[in-house]
Amino acid sequence: MSAGTILIKGFLKAEHHGRAEALAGPFTIRYAGDAPQIGRELDDVVAIAGPVSPSELQMAPRLQWVHSWLAGPDNALFPELVNGPVVLTSSAGNGAVPLAEHAMLLLLMLDRDVPRWAKAQQEHRWDRYRHGELAGTTVGIFGLGRSGMDLASKAKAFHMRVVGLRRRAELPTPGIDHLYSLDQLHEFASECDHIVITAPLTETTKGVFDAGVFAAMKPTANLVCISRGGIINDDDLLAALQQGQIRAAGLDAHGVEPLPDQSPFWDLPNVIVTPHNGATTGALLERQTAIFLDNLERFGQGAQLINVVDKQAGY
Amino acid sequence: MSAGTILIKGFLKAEHHGRAEALAGPFTIRYAGDAPQIGRELDDVVAIAGPVSPSELQMAPRLQWVHSWLAGPDNALFPELVNGPVVLTSSAGNGAVPLAEHAMLLLLMLDRDVPRWAKAQQEHRWDRYRHGELAGTTVGIFGLGRSGMDLASKAKAFHMRVVGLRRRAELPTPGIDHLYSLDQLHEFASECDHIVITAPLTETTKGVFDAGVFAAMKPTANLVCISRGGIINDDDLLAALQQGQIRAAGLDAHGVEPLPDQSPFWDLPNVIVTPHNGATTGALLERQTAIFLDNLERFGQGAQLINVVDKQAGY
Repeated sequence: MSAGTILIKGFLKAEHHGRAEALAGPFTIRYAGDAPQIGRELDDVVAIAGPVSPSELQMAPRLQWVHSWLAGPDNALFPELVNGPVVLTSSAGNGAVPLAEHAMLLLLMLDRDVPRWAKAQQEHRWDRYRHGELAGTTVGIFGLGRSGMDLASKAKAFHMRVVGLRRRAELPTPGIDHLYSLDQLHEFASECDHIVITAPLTETTKGVFDAGVFAAMKPTANLVCISRGGIINDDDLLAALQQGQIRAAGLDAHGVEPLPDQSPFWDLPNVIVTPHNGATTGALLERQTAIFLDNLERFGQGAQLINVVDKQAGY
Repeated sequence: MSAGTILIKGFLKAEHHGRAEALAGPFTIRYAGDAPQIGRELDDVVAIAGPVSPSELQMAPRLQWVHSWLAGPDNALFPELVNGPVVLTSSAGNGAVPLAEHAMLLLLMLDRDVPRWAKAQQEHRWDRYRHGELAGTTVGIFGLGRSGMDLASKAKAFHMRVVGLRRRAELPTPGIDHLYSLDQLHEFASECDHIVITAPLTETTKGVFDAGVFAAMKPTANLVCISRGGIINDDDLLAALQQGQIRAAGLDAHGVEPLPDQSPFWDLPNVIVTPHNGATTGALLERQTAIFLDNLERFGQGAQLINVVDKQAGY
């Protein structure tokens, strides 16, 4: 029996194939598109980089390792994989820096009402007005993973007070002025001038930004989401924005993607929509490739993988 | 003869009048609008806070101190004042932080092509595309006063390389990776992925961003101006933007303000126009008031003033 096959589905550019094959050690590499693999094509597969379905999992008896091209591999977290022995790794960290950049962009755009300037430019109007400044205000970061921590250091350079909320309060959080736990979500919400959601979508975070949280927030507060739709209850957010319970929102991640044509969020005057596009940079693709090749080399050598997902926690 | 009158023209809100009078020591305070003062109204005036004309200067024989409500008091720098004994102070520093915020906003908007997302939002289109990220790029800051230095620390939190150009190279410049002098302007320009102009308008800086500089810049580079029009040669910038000699520009300060209706900058697809509005925040007004009241107290006590302008240097 051969050492086994590593199946690479999508993403990896041809220019990296030679390097991948050199790193794979005793394993054979096979490339495939994103289409489902069937039957005996999977007999020999010990690792898959790319999306995996429950039926593929069932048809790959030798499978040890699945690598996701996504930073948040929630699509791979079906029960058969979560509860089985296969190790799941992710591309976590590939988008942290550009996501934090996008969060700062949305915070500044909301605080300064950029759509008003854009309209004035179209109409050649010199429309000067008094707007906010971020310095001296409090930003609350919901989720302190890599993008949340990078955002915290940026917010500090903007002279902001930074509070955070994370599940694992025992982890170090440099640059965070005050740390809340999930059962203090309303207290956290009430203190912030701006809230940025950077958490993964898990059973714990699903729908937690609901009417109760929006009622607790300041009516002058802005909400930004750069990680995943579904953490926000969209119906409740819509009501809060329409009723002025909060001031405005900047949404890169949405409950349904692509955001449907009939979604009311497109047209709300106090909403900035971007198309889950915050991290889509050339450097992201380079980091995504580097993370995979690092893990491929480790797998080839039988070493410990990096970016291993806690399948029960969901990230 | 009385100790003299301090004439406060405009700006200072009535709620601060009591405090101002308490701080003025032996001097009498008189309030006026922005209109010119004439004749013997100025006989007794020892200090003016607000705009001053050459004829007012001539009619105020006892005048010792002029305070400008502006951070860049270029309007007050006419020869009779520059070459005379009157001490000029400014509101420098009042807008440094919100200006640096505005510079980061414009850098991010240009790098991510925000007008494209704004158009897609209007049309309910899910328009995902690959854009830049600031991390790993080089920003050049032209002028390292208070806004330039605050911008440098923000750019560092964005993982950028920061180079600077300043006239007084002997002053400390923490956080600047490389410092250029004005005679190295082309070399500075050629190295930067982004340039931000934060310098004051002086005889030295007038028109220095000309065709030669734009030819030296990378065709992928973005230019931002947050301080003063006139430092850029607008005709040369227009040509550079139309010919793709540089990628895009974000302009808060303009050669003529308000920007005339027929200015081509309004409609260029690679230009973001804001109406000299970057620093216009509530906190700015508080800092502006605090700087003046501090100086008023010092003047009342015969102490050394702060924010004294080097009238020959122009800032």
